[in-house]
Amino acid sequence: MIELPSEARVVNVGLRMFADAVAAQGAAVVQVDARPPAHGDPELVRALTDVYAADLEAANAEVLRRLDREVPYVVDVRPAMEVVPGMGDRSLLHAGPPIAWAEVCDPLRRSMRAAVVAEGWADEPGTAERLLTSGEVTLSAANEHDTVVPLATALGPSAPVWVVDDPAGGTRAFAPLGQGSGDVAWLGRESPAAIERLVFLRTVAGPMLKEIVARTGPIDTFAIAAQGVQMGDDVHMRVQASTGIVLRTMLPAIAALGGDSADVAAFSAYLSANHLFFLTMAMASAKALTLSAGRVPGSSIVTTMARNGTTYGVKLAGDRRWFVADSPPVEAALFHPGYGPRDGAPDIGDSAVLELVGLGGSASAGSPAVAAFLGGSMADAASATAETRRICAAESTRFTLPTMDFRGTPLGVDVRRVVETGITPRVNTGILHVSSGAGQVGAGVASAPFAAFRQALLALARAHRAPP
Amino acid sequence: MIELPSEARVVNVGLRMFADAVAAQGAAVVQVDARPPAHGDPELVRALTDVYAADLEAANAEVLRRLDREVPYVVDVRPAMEVVPGMGDRSLLHAGPPIAWAEVCDPLRRSMRAAVVAEGWADEPGTAERLLTSGEVTLSAANEHDTVVPLATALGPSAPVWVVDDPAGGTRAFAPLGQGSGDVAWLGRESPAAIERLVFLRTVAGPMLKEIVARTGPIDTFAIAAQGVQMGDDVHMRVQASTGIVLRTMLPAIAALGGDSADVAAFSAYLSANHLFFLTMAMASAKALTLSAGRVPGSSIVTTMARNGTTYGVKLAGDRRWFVADSPPVEAALFHPGYGPRDGAPDIGDSAVLELVGLGGSASAGSPAVAAFLGGSMADAASATAETRRICAAESTRFTLPTMDFRGTPLGVDVRRVVETGITPRVNTGILHVSSGAGQVGAGVASAPFAAFRQALLALARAHRAPP
Repeated sequence: MIELPSEARVVNVGLRMFADAVAAQGAAVVQVDARPPAHGDPELVRALTDVYAADLEAANAEVLRRLDREVPYVVDVRPAMEVVPGMGDRSLLHAGPPIAWAEVCDPLRRSMRAAVVAEGWADEPGTAERLLTSGEVTLSAANEHDTVVPLATALGPSAPVWVVDDPAGGTRAFAPLGQGSGDVAWLGRESPAAIERLVFLRTVAGPMLKEIVARTGPIDTFAIAAQGVQMGDDVHMRVQASTGIVLRTMLPAIAALGGDSADVAAFSAYLSANHLFFLTMAMASAKALTLSAGRVPGSSIVTTMARNGTTYGVKLAGDRRWFVADSPPVEAALFHPGYGPRDGAPDIGDSAVLELVGLGGSASAGSPAVAAFLGGSMADAASATAETRRICAAESTRFTLPTMDFRGTPLGVDVRRVVETGITPRVNTGILHVSSGAGQVGAGVASAPFAAFRQALLALARAHRAPP
Repeated sequence: MIELPSEARVVNVGLRMFADAVAAQGAAVVQVDARPPAHGDPELVRALTDVYAADLEAANAEVLRRLDREVPYVVDVRPAMEVVPGMGDRSLLHAGPPIAWAEVCDPLRRSMRAAVVAEGWADEPGTAERLLTSGEVTLSAANEHDTVVPLATALGPSAPVWVVDDPAGGTRAFAPLGQGSGDVAWLGRESPAAIERLVFLRTVAGPMLKEIVARTGPIDTFAIAAQGVQMGDDVHMRVQASTGIVLRTMLPAIAALGGDSADVAAFSAYLSANHLFFLTMAMASAKALTLSAGRVPGSSIVTTMARNGTTYGVKLAGDRRWFVADSPPVEAALFHPGYGPRDGAPDIGDSAVLELVGLGGSASAGSPAVAAFLGGSMADAASATAETRRICAAESTRFTLPTMDFRGTPLGVDVRRVVETGITPRVNTGILHVSSGAGQVGAGVASAPFAAFRQALLALARAHRAPP
């Protein structure tokens, strides 16, 4: 005779309703949440099976090594036309995947009109609009030119850019100088002041920063970013500490500019007020590393992630194709007074490159400023980083989180893990007004669209599928 | 008939041996650690009883309000002799309680000799020694002149000082400009370079910073410190973030100094390399507040805590008397390579004023850099702040700790709680070589001597004891 146990202890895996039914009868039950991988989509499950069967580990290890270990340096500041490969005389570079004028979102249109006027191709935004509509100005994805631009930046040929070298990778990347806050074109403004700021960058800030970098010598931006992460920067939404360190590094060269001239006064006021100054230095640095990592074929690691306000594009290492989906809204947002979710344009900017090297959303756990967007407590920020860890293949050895007892930030978004878990990278970013030209109206967190990663995984599976 | 329980559950309060005995018999036991208050010292227990019977709460509340709510501003930079009250023509101010030359510790002697040479009273340290031995140079405790000086600083009449006003309190306090790192007098050096740096501060840095402060306007130092605490500064051992913010604030005025002159180059190099630049700005600011709080009579809150490397002095609000004990060693220390505990001079400096306003040891929980001295993990740093909370009467509303979900730092050291718990304030500080003149050899944490707080409590009890 079989003796029945006097009580049952139940472990339920999966649908919670079974656990609830057991609990309702007064029995002990442990609920283990489990969902089928890849939303249970048979095509994706098959693709995952194929991709896991392929041996990507050596390629991935090399990609991760480059992202984690190579060292980018700011070495120069130059007008884009002098250094950016393939930059046309009458072209503007923008964030995200390639896009036609007709599809360009409102804040980016405004920024493009401002850039056309600043370049001297038109007298005012109305004329600029006609040039853009007629196709006389070429639009081109900055990423296709080894360049990354933040938010709604439109980068003309005369605009000064940070030149960043990754000596180990043999790559060189570019990003524009930060335009500062307020009434500025990269936030979707086309006012006279916004256009004036673009001219100031070209005529004053660019040449002065070129002189400062020459005097200071190559700037190890990620050594600065690593200190910044110890000081509450996620080095995306918040770069206050890193900015302080880089300005202190530059201080002797700034003071040596000399003269009580109006230009020096305007330049130093621009530096002093620009709490995001380091952002584009970090972006160009991250791009130099992802360019190097992107040369490794046959990897499942994401090396491009960029949005133009209309579409969101992803690339894998070793693959030149964009995998594109609609750009999502920015959520977990704090809006400026008087603005709300209906005012926000879809996610825009190339700054998500920072999330590919262990910064931004990966570093949320260390940033009180970012925590404010994620529920207000540091536990919320820790959860964001913990979730990112689930879709990353490694941990940074240079960016470590004091709040996690100096554990490295998650590094190397693996498309396999994204599809398997259904978790997409979360990017800390600003929010621009969708239509009014008001500029920045808030900041928040945007989750990358699953559809782009789905396409990338399917393409990877096709490339690695064993012949039948 | 009484029914005995089938099992015993024991809660043991106090001596652990009883709990161990119960546990040895296999029974459940909860151990509650408890020690008699004030080490069980009957004189102290009686004094505590008397002091708790006196109504100090209104006075304490006012002291705490001043420490927490008043706002200090840097308003000027001036030679000490022009602004510091009671500063003699041939006097040097030093940290801690008053002290005679014969009792002065080695690093402070070296610093004093360097200052005498920098003032032009002697040609070289040997001659300076004779002036100091003969009593021709007056030594005076900086705190008696509304001034605070870090580590082994010797402040001569020509040395430039930060002038800090607390408008609400109507107080004004002073601290010297930071000398920077390395071969400098405040670290106990008397080399030609150390003397040269003192001369540079007087002739170059002082006048330039005076001009910079005039251009920048009053600087709200504690608004900067509050941001610094969000960025990993304890604003004592580590002021890296606060320094970055204040330099960015000053940047337009720095650039406006003009000229490619050697002086501007030397000055900007000094600023760029000085990661402790903000320290003395914060110290003078804290002193302005403790001066205001110290005017409230009949309080148990500590408003002076200062060490001269030989003795350690404490004062209570409303009481001009020093309560003095031997200066302790600096423990929980990290030493520079080649140095160890036997090389460290006893605790020295007025910087412990920061620990009285919610900074330094109170803010350890937010500082990865300080955590390195306390065991290496952020949990160790959190324990240090938690222990400080046990001896403080309030929490700061301006300095909040991200790692404790924005809870305020402990504020207002209450002598009653110090004596009751036996826990003394812990101060984050540098360590100077005890005898060789090597300068700084490490950094660590120094626990204030209980004996000084004991005296302070007994004096407070005598003042408040009901007549027999």
